[in-house]
Amino acid sequence: MKSQFRQVALIGKYHAAVSGAAASTRAALDDIAHFLHAQGCEVVFDRDTASSAGITGYTTLDVAAIGQQCDLVLVVGGDGTMLGIGRQLARHGVPLIGINQGRLGFITDIPLDLYRATLEPMLRGEYEEDQRSLMHGRVMRDGHCVFEALAMNDVVVNRGATSGMVELRVEVDGHFVANQRADGLIVASPTGSTAYSLSAGGPLLHPSTQGWVLVPIAPHTLSNRPIVLPESSEITIEVVSGRDASANFDMQSLASLLHGDRITVRRSQHSVRFLHPRGWTYFDTLRRKLHWYEK
Amino acid sequence: MKSQFRQVALIGKYHAAVSGAAASTRAALDDIAHFLHAQGCEVVFDRDTASSAGITGYTTLDVAAIGQQCDLVLVVGGDGTMLGIGRQLARHGVPLIGINQGRLGFITDIPLDLYRATLEPMLRGEYEEDQRSLMHGRVMRDGHCVFEALAMNDVVVNRGATSGMVELRVEVDGHFVANQRADGLIVASPTGSTAYSLSAGGPLLHPSTQGWVLVPIAPHTLSNRPIVLPESSEITIEVVSGRDASANFDMQSLASLLHGDRITVRRSQHSVRFLHPRGWTYFDTLRRKLHWYEK
Amino acid sequence: MKSQFRQVALIGKYHAAVSGAAASTRAALDDIAHFLHAQGCEVVFDRDTASSAGITGYTTLDVAAIGQQCDLVLVVGGDGTMLGIGRQLARHGVPLIGINQGRLGFITDIPLDLYRATLEPMLRGEYEEDQRSLMHGRVMRDGHCVFEALAMNDVVVNRGATSGMVELRVEVDGHFVANQRADGLIVASPTGSTAYSLSAGGPLLHPSTQGWVLVPIAPHTLSNRPIVLPESSEITIEVVSGRDASANFDMQSLASLLHGDRITVRRSQHSVRFLHPRGWTYFDTLRRKLHWYEK
Amino acid sequence: MKSQFRQVALIGKYHAAVSGAAASTRAALDDIAHFLHAQGCEVVFDRDTASSAGITGYTTLDVAAIGQQCDLVLVVGGDGTMLGIGRQLARHGVPLIGINQGRLGFITDIPLDLYRATLEPMLRGEYEEDQRSLMHGRVMRDGHCVFEALAMNDVVVNRGATSGMVELRVEVDGHFVANQRADGLIVASPTGSTAYSLSAGGPLLHPSTQGWVLVPIAPHTLSNRPIVLPESSEITIEVVSGRDASANFDMQSLASLLHGDRITVRRSQHSVRFLHPRGWTYFDTLRRKLHWYEK
Repeated sequence: MKSQFRQVALIGKYHAAVSGAAASTRAALDDIAHFLHAQGCEVVFDRDTASSAGITGYTTLDVAAIGQQCDLVLVVGGDGTMLGIGRQLARHGVPLIGINQGRLGFITDIPLDLYRATLEPMLRGEYEEDQRSLMHGRVMRDGHCVFEALAMNDVVVNRGATSGMVELRVEVDGHFVANQRADGLIVASPTGSTAYSLSAGGPLLHPSTQGWVLVPIAPHTLSNRPIVLPESSEITIEVVSGRDASANFDMQSLASLLHGDRITVRRSQHSVRFLHPRGWTYFDTLRRKLHWYEK
Repeated sequence: MKSQFRQVALIGKYHAAVSGAAASTRAALDDIAHFLHAQGCEVVFDRDTASSAGITGYTTLDVAAIGQQCDLVLVVGGDGTMLGIGRQLARHGVPLIGINQGRLGFITDIPLDLYRATLEPMLRGEYEEDQRSLMHGRVMRDGHCVFEALAMNDVVVNRGATSGMVELRVEVDGHFVANQRADGLIVASPTGSTAYSLSAGGPLLHPSTQGWVLVPIAPHTLSNRPIVLPESSEITIEVVSGRDASANFDMQSLASLLHGDRITVRRSQHSVRFLHPRGWTYFDTLRRKLHWYEK
Repeated sequence: MKSQFRQVALIGKYHAAVSGAAASTRAALDDIAHFLHAQGCEVVFDRDTASSAGITGYTTLDVAAIGQQCDLVLVVGGDGTMLGIGRQLARHGVPLIGINQGRLGFITDIPLDLYRATLEPMLRGEYEEDQRSLMHGRVMRDGHCVFEALAMNDVVVNRGATSGMVELRVEVDGHFVANQRADGLIVASPTGSTAYSLSAGGPLLHPSTQGWVLVPIAPHTLSNRPIVLPESSEITIEVVSGRDASANFDMQSLASLLHGDRITVRRSQHSVRFLHPRGWTYFDTLRRKLHWYEK
Repeated sequence: MKSQFRQVALIGKYHAAVSGAAASTRAALDDIAHFLHAQGCEVVFDRDTASSAGITGYTTLDVAAIGQQCDLVLVVGGDGTMLGIGRQLARHGVPLIGINQGRLGFITDIPLDLYRATLEPMLRGEYEEDQRSLMHGRVMRDGHCVFEALAMNDVVVNRGATSGMVELRVEVDGHFVANQRADGLIVASPTGSTAYSLSAGGPLLHPSTQGWVLVPIAPHTLSNRPIVLPESSEITIEVVSGRDASANFDMQSLASLLHGDRITVRRSQHSVRFLHPRGWTYFDTLRRKLHWYEK
């Protein structure tokens, strides 16, 4: 047997069917499944993927069962799909590889048309492993948790669309940090440091940095600066004033926050494992995606 | 007669009655009215101000009539009140003075408790005059103007609260500038350069600068920078994609913009005239309000 | 006669001879001279250019005489060459066109290999004109001017290399602005807003903006922001403390500034006229040079 | 015996004698020595401190011997003094407390006039401990180390004063990161994140963050952003071009770097231990020193 990974699951971009790209996605998934089989893997399909792509003849499992049984998951899609699957599989510790049909992402870095040459050595064990911390966010109201979610990128508290700014009271490990008046506040992981946090002026955090970064969005004072905290910190953001604020965990949202609501962020006990081709470095990805320091 | 200004109007903060500050506002307005009379001025009250403060015994006029008849307008309130009155009076060319009951603003710079000593020389002609350009903004849909307003601070196109970013196509004088993917875009006047634009990272523009500044909000690329344009420019912002975007002229809003809507900004033919105490400089205001370069 | 410009001067990059590019520069200049002659122009060569490139058979003049006699100046080189020639010719009002042998610049925007098709309509009068303001900077010591120069890009006061920061006292039109502790301070024109000022975090200024921007370099406080001033302002920068500070006007430097030295910047009465191909816009140049808002 | 720390050393600001503050420093040191004795400590003086302050009657040791023998070191001075002593004592693991005669610093946070009430519980063991990582920097030339130093704040590679920018090739753990053209590059520790790095636009790093931040100084491209790296990284900066560049480890400098010189930064095996009053938090210090998020 060539592959170190016996049971390998294939998960495609959800709703691909509606995008008119169904046929090409189906062909791609079929092709990859044959390739995996030829490498000695037992191929399993995500049930929703098989169903929406119209693929038959394979064992299908839901994502939770995939997490329990499989040794490796191949995600065919973009960064958004990968983050969603990553959150769902975090508790199971199964590694993920991302194959991208379009423009390469930060974490889906294998182009579909090169997947054979790239995957073959990876399945044999020739890969770089990259572990990403997850945030566990909660919204507390009157002492009760009213919303709870994992986030790979960021936890964002935002003002309402037609309202002015929000005022947010930030605490870290029970210590008062600052009262911020702004459009919002981002708590980003290293993974999220290349997403919304970057737009708001935050620094990049190498994935091996064990920290979060707090980045205000359009803060109403000159005296502010993003701050990096160790990931062991418990961060609390209390809504002091402002109408229609919302809490967003990756893109999972709770709207209409009330004054006094407290959003807490701490490190999840789980991490997500991404596998990359041998020789991969985060810096190459940065240069490619951000045209970083390009002349 | 001591005052160079014969007919002087008094306008208070609207809705002051509801804030519980009605009694003190009323006392302040009464007091100022007596003072103006003693300086040889004919005192006129804004109708809504007199009505909500319960002031009687003076000629009352609506704001438009004040603009037509009066030689000077005293606004008792904060910067927001002053901007609103300024927009309404711009076409009439009457100068404004701002008296502030609370923390001094950028343009309301006379503290209520010092108003006598400060106003007395100003009425005699000892003042600094400071003209502010106004923007005239419109929203065009299918060739028709569906919204129109003046703005002293800024014209802002914003994404919806729960949506992702908007894509905006910017043109200046018919020339393509850039397609921006961001939370939004601000076109700010020098007056607005200390408001939302500053929060979004924009530069300060001295009030005598005849220019606008374009500042993206949380732009989705590293390759961006605020740009200052001459105020003679016509700026067009077209909504290319994004849900529930809104256009905001100062705080006057049109929500639910459609793709293809074009927001245009050009210089209004009118300006607003603010009078300040002799010796006033914009730089003193900056240092006081922004703790600018404070050690 | 085809060309609207009768007498046209050619100026090449100085010291091109030493760069080993002498032969190609000579060929290019020869070629352009023949082309101009064919367009009905009387061709004049800058004396130093002709001498260093080994070109004979043409009238040669020094730069001052070119300014007095010629109707148009073609500069073959990069932005640096163009800025230097622009400063020297400003008093004469003669327009300049920049032809670039290498990577296009901000103001030298005609590629050498396309010069014929581009220049032909320009000589006939089909061009965009773009006037750039010049700064006149001086260093005053004990009431005397000890250094004086024109600058197209910027006036920069810098700390010494091995010293800590400088403290600079800034005044505008005699009004105190701020005491800045920083690595230095830049006063940039719109032309200079794409140069050092941009690196230090300054905004872009459209060339038609009649203003300067003050941008601190690595300021020692969070409470700072670039500020745009009308070009009618007289800006004074006094060296309060710091060793070995220097004043730089474009790249013309006076080192070893003393405490109490005052650097003044005001608008020169002269401007520089650049001609661009019909249809040229500043925004196209920005996008090309800065990858501005590139996805 | 009241104090947990038996042998306590006192170190004053070097060269205090020349500043005219000698008398007050001497009085302060004397006073503190008596207080320590009363708390049951055996008091030792730094030899240079005793000599320059003219203090006699105590055991004196040089700094190295203090590190070997003492249980606690009290530094009377500012942050600069504290950093210097911290570097010297790092290998010995002895904790430091900073007492400040003037404006409080980031790490010298006990005001001289409150030292008794503050130190008394600290000596009894009531304190917060705060460990700071140290950088070990080297300059390699032709394979040999030509300069070597510890740094608590930062390692900075700077252009020369009168030269243009430098080009620096950055590698992390042997992987290419970027070629940066800038005024310089800062590698800052969490301790240094409130110093030069902050001026250059870097984020704050909480002292418990196990990372360094790379911050370019006036980078010549829009496509840049500070990046936080795990402190386990080995960072290499190679001088590619630029005249008179210098390497600075805290303020210890090597000027006149040559092209090809490689500056390497890695975590020192030693840390510095600072003790703070019970209840101290880093966030309080940030707010006090930076007026952080102050309205």
